[in-house]
Amino acid sequence: MADDKLAFASIAEIGRLFRARKLSPVELTKLQLERIERLNPKLNAFITVAADGALKEAATAESELCARRKGSRRDRGPLHGIPVSLKDNIYTKDIRTTGGSHVLRDFVPLHDAAVVSALKKAGTVILGKTNLHEFAYGVTTQNPHFGPVHNPWDLTRIPGGSSGGSAAALAAGLCYGSIGTDTGGSIRIPASLCGVVGLKPGLGRVRTEGVIPLSITLDFVGPLARTAGDVALLLDPIFIRAKREKKPSASAKLRGLTLGIPKEFFFDVVNDDVEAVFETALRLLKKSGAKFKFVSLPGVGETEMAGNHIAWPEATLYHQQAGWFPARAEEYSEDVRTRLEVGTRVTAIDYLRARELREKFTAEFHATLEHNGLDALVVPTTPIAAPRPDEESVLIKGVTHSTRALLLRLNRPANLAGVPSISVPCGLTREGLPVGLQFMAGWTDEPLLLNVARLFEREYSFSVRPQLD
Amino acid sequence: MADDKLAFASIAEIGRLFRARKLSPVELTKLQLERIERLNPKLNAFITVAADGALKEAATAESELCARRKGSRRDRGPLHGIPVSLKDNIYTKDIRTTGGSHVLRDFVPLHDAAVVSALKKAGTVILGKTNLHEFAYGVTTQNPHFGPVHNPWDLTRIPGGSSGGSAAALAAGLCYGSIGTDTGGSIRIPASLCGVVGLKPGLGRVRTEGVIPLSITLDFVGPLARTAGDVALLLDPIFIRAKREKKPSASAKLRGLTLGIPKEFFFDVVNDDVEAVFETALRLLKKSGAKFKFVSLPGVGETEMAGNHIAWPEATLYHQQAGWFPARAEEYSEDVRTRLEVGTRVTAIDYLRARELREKFTAEFHATLEHNGLDALVVPTTPIAAPRPDEESVLIKGVTHSTRALLLRLNRPANLAGVPSISVPCGLTREGLPVGLQFMAGWTDEPLLLNVARLFEREYSFSVRPQLD
Repeated sequence: MADDKLAFASIAEIGRLFRARKLSPVELTKLQLERIERLNPKLNAFITVAADGALKEAATAESELCARRKGSRRDRGPLHGIPVSLKDNIYTKDIRTTGGSHVLRDFVPLHDAAVVSALKKAGTVILGKTNLHEFAYGVTTQNPHFGPVHNPWDLTRIPGGSSGGSAAALAAGLCYGSIGTDTGGSIRIPASLCGVVGLKPGLGRVRTEGVIPLSITLDFVGPLARTAGDVALLLDPIFIRAKREKKPSASAKLRGLTLGIPKEFFFDVVNDDVEAVFETALRLLKKSGAKFKFVSLPGVGETEMAGNHIAWPEATLYHQQAGWFPARAEEYSEDVRTRLEVGTRVTAIDYLRARELREKFTAEFHATLEHNGLDALVVPTTPIAAPRPDEESVLIKGVTHSTRALLLRLNRPANLAGVPSISVPCGLTREGLPVGLQFMAGWTDEPLLLNVARLFEREYSFSVRPQLD
Repeated sequence: MADDKLAFASIAEIGRLFRARKLSPVELTKLQLERIERLNPKLNAFITVAADGALKEAATAESELCARRKGSRRDRGPLHGIPVSLKDNIYTKDIRTTGGSHVLRDFVPLHDAAVVSALKKAGTVILGKTNLHEFAYGVTTQNPHFGPVHNPWDLTRIPGGSSGGSAAALAAGLCYGSIGTDTGGSIRIPASLCGVVGLKPGLGRVRTEGVIPLSITLDFVGPLARTAGDVALLLDPIFIRAKREKKPSASAKLRGLTLGIPKEFFFDVVNDDVEAVFETALRLLKKSGAKFKFVSLPGVGETEMAGNHIAWPEATLYHQQAGWFPARAEEYSEDVRTRLEVGTRVTAIDYLRARELREKFTAEFHATLEHNGLDALVVPTTPIAAPRPDEESVLIKGVTHSTRALLLRLNRPANLAGVPSISVPCGLTREGLPVGLQFMAGWTDEPLLLNVARLFEREYSFSVRPQLD
């Protein structure tokens, strides 16, 4: 397989090559490290490349997986020997974890985050730590301390955030999977803007221990990869299943699925380009047999303010208790500092109202799925494709909107409701920028979402790749 | 039995008289109603006397309990036919429930609170609704809308609050039990000041549905009566037991019990009179074989501010959502209005810090019991005996303290930690005012507390009664 084709192969394909002895984990890791060395200067997707560690892990994987004597062989499963990256707000023992910040510039954790331990056990090779919006508190990944991340589809554009480095690294073929975090869309927004797949799991389904918190009641940890199949493989070792939870039988067809399209909010502010791509995707789903229902979700309009009133003070409290804010306020970028200041001004009553709204909206979300017999809701992930860093506002149908608010807008509802949500690429705008399609489902429906995403991918093969060399 | 002696008999004694046909529920209810008619004008303990309803309930109890034909007889247990009162923030179907407020002056609920349904099922006779501090938001029960409640031990003094009417009615022999509410001491403070017993149960042990909330995460509903034995009988039908929870075997002796005396906070501000009575009580406990340990509870000092930062905004939010505040602000008494205004100014961060402190203190409380092998902690309930309404501050050891803060001070820790706590009379000051002894224990230890209180009562018979006629 040509090196470039190899860089964009699926995890399953790589696994087959490993097991057919046509490729070794060490070989692949070297190829990935060379590719990072060549392309990362253009993208700035990695803050830290852990070359030595990765090669050691690859050697271990190789000795386990490819041992000559059958008796010494140990196969840890689909992720064994697979090179991945981790967003740099996830604790890694002996690899510095900056949080994309100045205050943690030289911080080396003494232990791994829960998800890192799980991935190591599954045999992954950790290539390094990806760039992010400072402390995951923003959606542009214009990091002032480690430099901005560039979108592989157009280096003059942002990759989205806060897991921008993870999505950019995947889009550029610099790793086969990545773990990100998502408090208001931070996995799905960059997945949408970089043309990769990102899953925000449901509440309590992936452990958050050892991840630098942004907003403790809205934080989620989840996988990004280039296909839904790869995302499913990455999710498996970090996923918490209920005791008697069965793996649902994967439906082989889109036929029989009922998808809800919310009447309110989600389509009020979407630009023409994204709308056109989204509608083409819907036609494809319809052609393949999926049914649609227009459904009502009246509480969704209040999720934006509720999300802010929860996230702002929770974020500030963490930085206060760490002793960084306001003591070292000048070490933060201006946008993060401003939001930390805003967090001090939210009243307890606004916070309590937001928590109440959250509970109400969560109930309403589930009732809407239930009463309409829906498998999932389908909406765009972001109402715009990747903007340029200086586009602080965007004109949509004659009205100016804040870019930050637009990127968060369609993602927050799933964080508020605590339900799983996935973003998959569904086409390119006329400018050649990826557009994300978002599916949201009920609690414990991560497998259903991954299946829907896989079925969609089968119908719409997203094979175009950004040209970087 | 003389009428007066009957009015102060225990629930068990009354039950024996009923079953020996020496007294009937209707007779007793009539005696109680006459007594209320005679003494309530002095005390103002009742806002509403439900004479007709009480007589009907008594007649039903009588027909069930005293049916001539044995086959028609139905004995609902120890509370059958027993006249009780309910604090007027507890919903009663067809009896107005004012909350001690002007805004609910004429409010008649369409359903009973959960605890009322349970008491009715147990056959109690509901005499009426007792006076309280407006919306349970204060500790004096100087109610501007329904008049102040007077302490039966000295009519010029306050009964404490907010369940002041319940405690005064019990101390004056106007009912055999009452249900109160306790957000920061509102059951135990009036129990202490009026010389009766009050139990604040542990978190989740008595349902709060149908009770006008003060602070949803700090509110507790519980019984008051003249003895720990009576409190135990009242608790039984409203108590939520865990599925496999066994009734612990009641220890017959104080010998073998280990009681903790906190080194911090609880004894920093206690007036000489209360201190002297408390020490006498400790000597009695010691003489009876109880062991003491001085223990450390360093987080307790922060419970006061934490309690305020939780209760204030939670209280205001309820009144805002009901549409009463600020729209009808002038209908509140000045002290309640001021606190509702303070609630709007607490920040989300202060609230979150308080919730965190609460969790930390709760863990510390349980660890202290565990590590020291304690059955319970023992402290005074209030650092002063009943003050006069105009004593807004009190001088203790040369320092001036707010009376309100003093009365709450030793009670809030149990609300914060969510643990059960009981106040029992343990003596009189030189002025002849009752002093309360407070025992606090771990989760699920309500039975243990009731047993300790009963054992204490056996050693120290609190037989003096206030003279009202």
